[in-house]
Amino acid sequence: MEEKLHLLRQHFEELFALTDDQWNFVQSHFQYKSLKKHQFLIQAGQAVNFEYWIIKGLVKAYSIDDKGKEHILQFAMENYWVSDHCAFQHQEPGTIFVDCLEDSEFFCLSLENREKICLEVPAVANFFRIKSNNGYINLQQRILSLLTMTAESRYEYLLNKLPKLIQRVPKKLIASYLGVSRETLSRFNS
Amino acid sequence: MEEKLHLLRQHFEELFALTDDQWNFVQSHFQYKSLKKHQFLIQAGQAVNFEYWIIKGLVKAYSIDDKGKEHILQFAMENYWVSDHCAFQHQEPGTIFVDCLEDSEFFCLSLENREKICLEVPAVANFFRIKSNNGYINLQQRILSLLTMTAESRYEYLLNKLPKLIQRVPKKLIASYLGVSRETLSRFNS
Repeated sequence: MEEKLHLLRQHFEELFALTDDQWNFVQSHFQYKSLKKHQFLIQAGQAVNFEYWIIKGLVKAYSIDDKGKEHILQFAMENYWVSDHCAFQHQEPGTIFVDCLEDSEFFCLSLENREKICLEVPAVANFFRIKSNNGYINLQQRILSLLTMTAESRYEYLLNKLPKLIQRVPKKLIASYLGVSRETLSRFNS
Repeated sequence: MEEKLHLLRQHFEELFALTDDQWNFVQSHFQYKSLKKHQFLIQAGQAVNFEYWIIKGLVKAYSIDDKGKEHILQFAMENYWVSDHCAFQHQEPGTIFVDCLEDSEFFCLSLENREKICLEVPAVANFFRIKSNNGYINLQQRILSLLTMTAESRYEYLLNKLPKLIQRVPKKLIASYLGVSRETLSRFNS
């Protein structure tokens, strides 16, 4: 566990240095969780008690519409934060699913604990400020890509931006994320 | 100007109280700007030096694709923060346009000044953390609505969520935002 907590400290300190005392306070507010491939981290209709930092593994966040069709919001791997952020922030039942595409390990942070460490340690408030801002920017780029780009251009964009993630995600899920068939995706590859 | 700065202080203090000394420090890092209807706040290809808090007015943020088609990202009015956040954060040329649908007034915050006030005043770091997180949640809802909802459902969602904004935006722009014709939109209304 020491090794895993060290990874989390490194992640925080990529943006802002923490003293040992600050880190000991911060780390005491996280819980550890591990799941096997295919298990659910979050399920629509259930309470969303945590934001999750991925120590190891790969997950898929998705929504299911009235007709039962799956729409993929995001893939996330090591060093990503993932949750149903809306449900978590408002402490309401979730509206999306997050399941594991690989065996995965997480550190879990509750809303109460997140607010506590942010108010106690300004460097942590600034860390989450920058992370949320980067997340906002990424989603704005995703919206622009959905509005203005073809599926092929969005695939090239993904390949350039997240090459390591794309290698680990099954091709049929990449096709679903882009909203094209598996056959169409294979034509992009060639 | 005192009255306008008071509105900005109220906006910050909706989330976290500030002492008079903190507020005097914070407010000294903002600049005032006013634009007439149809003027540009941000133009693609040009430097994006500020994030803008809207004191008064209404703006439209949009992208223009390779074929010259306009895609509306967002409308924003009083109390909203608006920018080309990606270009601003990375200090790169903008990729979107923001123009005024009404005469508008803004307080402008540079990246250097934003970081300065966040590092100096923890309450301000927490303010922007919460704001960015809320912005992230709104964009995630927008993506889910683009992926899973019909234009009519998205219109009803807008009407419920932002009734005051919708009243002020010309119908043809609402239609464009939803990706439908003006005629289709008028059928939603009935």
